[in-house]
Amino acid sequence: MADKIKPRTLKGFRDYPPVTMIPREWIIETARRVYRSYGFCPMDTPSLEHLEILLGKGSDETDKQLYRFEDHGGRPVGLRFDLTVPLARFVAQHIQELGTPFKRYQIANVWRGENTQRGRYREFMQCDFDTIGTMSLTADIEMILVINDLLSALNVGEFTIHVNHRGILNGLLEKLELADKANRVLRSLDKLAKIKEEGVRKELAGAVGATDSQADQLLALTSLAGSNEEMLAEAEKLTTGSEIGEQGVAQLREALAAVSAALPGEAQGRIQFAPSICRGLDYYTGIVLETTLDELPGIGSVASGGRYDNLTDLYTKQQLPGVGASLGLDRLLAALEELGRLEQVQTTAQVFLPFFEAQRRDDYLKLATSLRKAGIGVEFFPEAKKLGKQLQYANRRGFRIALVIGGSEFDNRECQVKNLATGDSKTVAYADDATDLIAEIRSILASSD
Amino acid sequence: MADKIKPRTLKGFRDYPPVTMIPREWIIETARRVYRSYGFCPMDTPSLEHLEILLGKGSDETDKQLYRFEDHGGRPVGLRFDLTVPLARFVAQHIQELGTPFKRYQIANVWRGENTQRGRYREFMQCDFDTIGTMSLTADIEMILVINDLLSALNVGEFTIHVNHRGILNGLLEKLELADKANRVLRSLDKLAKIKEEGVRKELAGAVGATDSQADQLLALTSLAGSNEEMLAEAEKLTTGSEIGEQGVAQLREALAAVSAALPGEAQGRIQFAPSICRGLDYYTGIVLETTLDELPGIGSVASGGRYDNLTDLYTKQQLPGVGASLGLDRLLAALEELGRLEQVQTTAQVFLPFFEAQRRDDYLKLATSLRKAGIGVEFFPEAKKLGKQLQYANRRGFRIALVIGGSEFDNRECQVKNLATGDSKTVAYADDATDLIAEIRSILASSD
Repeated sequence: MADKIKPRTLKGFRDYPPVTMIPREWIIETARRVYRSYGFCPMDTPSLEHLEILLGKGSDETDKQLYRFEDHGGRPVGLRFDLTVPLARFVAQHIQELGTPFKRYQIANVWRGENTQRGRYREFMQCDFDTIGTMSLTADIEMILVINDLLSALNVGEFTIHVNHRGILNGLLEKLELADKANRVLRSLDKLAKIKEEGVRKELAGAVGATDSQADQLLALTSLAGSNEEMLAEAEKLTTGSEIGEQGVAQLREALAAVSAALPGEAQGRIQFAPSICRGLDYYTGIVLETTLDELPGIGSVASGGRYDNLTDLYTKQQLPGVGASLGLDRLLAALEELGRLEQVQTTAQVFLPFFEAQRRDDYLKLATSLRKAGIGVEFFPEAKKLGKQLQYANRRGFRIALVIGGSEFDNRECQVKNLATGDSKTVAYADDATDLIAEIRSILASSD
Repeated sequence: MADKIKPRTLKGFRDYPPVTMIPREWIIETARRVYRSYGFCPMDTPSLEHLEILLGKGSDETDKQLYRFEDHGGRPVGLRFDLTVPLARFVAQHIQELGTPFKRYQIANVWRGENTQRGRYREFMQCDFDTIGTMSLTADIEMILVINDLLSALNVGEFTIHVNHRGILNGLLEKLELADKANRVLRSLDKLAKIKEEGVRKELAGAVGATDSQADQLLALTSLAGSNEEMLAEAEKLTTGSEIGEQGVAQLREALAAVSAALPGEAQGRIQFAPSICRGLDYYTGIVLETTLDELPGIGSVASGGRYDNLTDLYTKQQLPGVGASLGLDRLLAALEELGRLEQVQTTAQVFLPFFEAQRRDDYLKLATSLRKAGIGVEFFPEAKKLGKQLQYANRRGFRIALVIGGSEFDNRECQVKNLATGDSKTVAYADDATDLIAEIRSILASSD
């Protein structure tokens, strides 16, 4: 026999066994359900694209991290590093058939040859949703509502959606006649949490050449505190005279009011004006947002996005604005794990059916079929081993119920229903259609939900 | 401005717009639901593997079709060409933690640099399920039940599951003292449909050197017709004296009886003994199956699989048998399209809410939120355009219901519920919780299901 090959995954990649994949699928399913409830439709694009589609679209870093090679036809190709560049290519190519507004979600893997020392993986999943082809603020408002619904459904505890409008900072920069130095200013302000006000002041004075008064006003904006209304009033004062600044404040105020109206009581305090959030330098043009978990703010944003003026700039003359966000699936999963909010379930069916009486296999199969037809998932153990061993397996896997049936039970048409959480057992009679048994199982499942 | 880049997909790859992706997601969801109802658990592996894991595992053809390159660390890597090789690597690596039986499903993309002239794509999705670590025939029986449930749920019309046991052909070959020429014999028999009995006889006489009597018996087996019981009785006669042949007949008989018992009435005629099916030469060792659609047999098998003795041979000394099958997602989708069984739906929410009264945006948002909380998907149009245009959009997309509300309706707390399939309209009053409106919507959705 040939030498064995050592079974191993590539550096930076990982396997997802059921214990990791079950909660992962649950998050993906929840995202799908919420996106769909707003009319977002699924779409997908190939993992591989012509290299020219991918190069130079992100940053120098994404170019360097790109998985690139030649395909069988000698074409330079690359694995997508995000879902936004393929979306832009897709929309430029198909917008005529699609029509607008085009509301899409895409849940798919992307690849980046990143430094793995930071606990990052080189293959990870993105869960994006976007509304393309409308300037209407309604789409921006909806983005906030989607994220609120999604995080509310995900058992993450309290969370905060931090919202800003790029027009506000840009308006102040315009007023201060620093618009041409926007990138450098934003890069400094972005470090506020890290290098504090003093550090930012130094950078603004040095690299940007800002005066003390300019720095004062920039820091006054980004350090605002108080209620949303108070902060908006201050931001309005700081940007008065700049059209884009005033419009930014007005749109943000309108969006926050609409979200409050749509979610009476619920959203108060959860959605906050955060004047220091930029979300990168060039791409976004209107409302931008990030989302943090109140119990774990340190892990960073778990859902981020914003409005952009022109998605398809590189591919077509037609200007297509859009607004959208992305759920950070892996970060969220890590957070739920850290918070102890993930159940350690390793089964997908609720009911376990031990194979107890070797001669009765076909009767077990028939019973399992009846239950499945009623929508109850049943795992039937494939081997007639000792009952104790089978129940050990059931407990390890995390089933909710075991149905214990031996030869005499089959003869008497009855079944022992064992609640594996409480240890309680109950004998239930069942006819051919198993109606009573189904009712008993449903009642246990409902009570322990 | 720089030159535009032509937006295009790579040869052999394709985009999935919503009209294609919605039914695709529906099939994937159905497969997940059915797999889960038997206790199969999701798992996943990386798209990229060490090249040595992938090379030489399929055929010369899969080696040639492999997408291979060097990663950023100079490691030779490849994109997986199926889900079975990664499963074998995964199981060899993790079986100690996983325990047996390990029941898994994996729904994921694979890549092959195939010739695209045959309408094949170079990236496609596989939907596999397997039970690893048990020799019990129960797992084989369950495989047949899973495929029966899955195809029954998929609106494909009548279908036939063709079942064979590799032991039967191997037993006959053993009896005929042709076991050492098995591969060449099977390759000839595989062409029966194409080159007919006469052609097969020629090949058997020529390449294999089989006598007329040997050819007679081989063709007698593969050409069997009649009821399952009649064919099994004939197969039994032909293989009498060969242990593996007799065991093959006995196991297949037992499996078919168990499936009939589990599915009283339903499975008769649908599950057929097909003595000519081999499913490749080396890998499978026990029961094998293929599934065809009765209305479109020509497209080939839409769900195939079987039992194998040793999944992890290449990676570990531990012998791990298994049984499993794969749903041919893209082939099935093409078939449903050809049969006209796919609805042309381009929406994921059932209810469309036109933006009719520009001043009332927040009221619309609040109503939409109430409906979503009741589990009803609502798409709110983002712009206050003319109602006619918005309803055109709704019809094109395939919504079931439109809720028409203007200023006076908001004032009177009423709403026009429009059934877009029938054109009927009804005015419904609603209070803050929208109870009556929700009931009316549910009744329309239920009636048109």
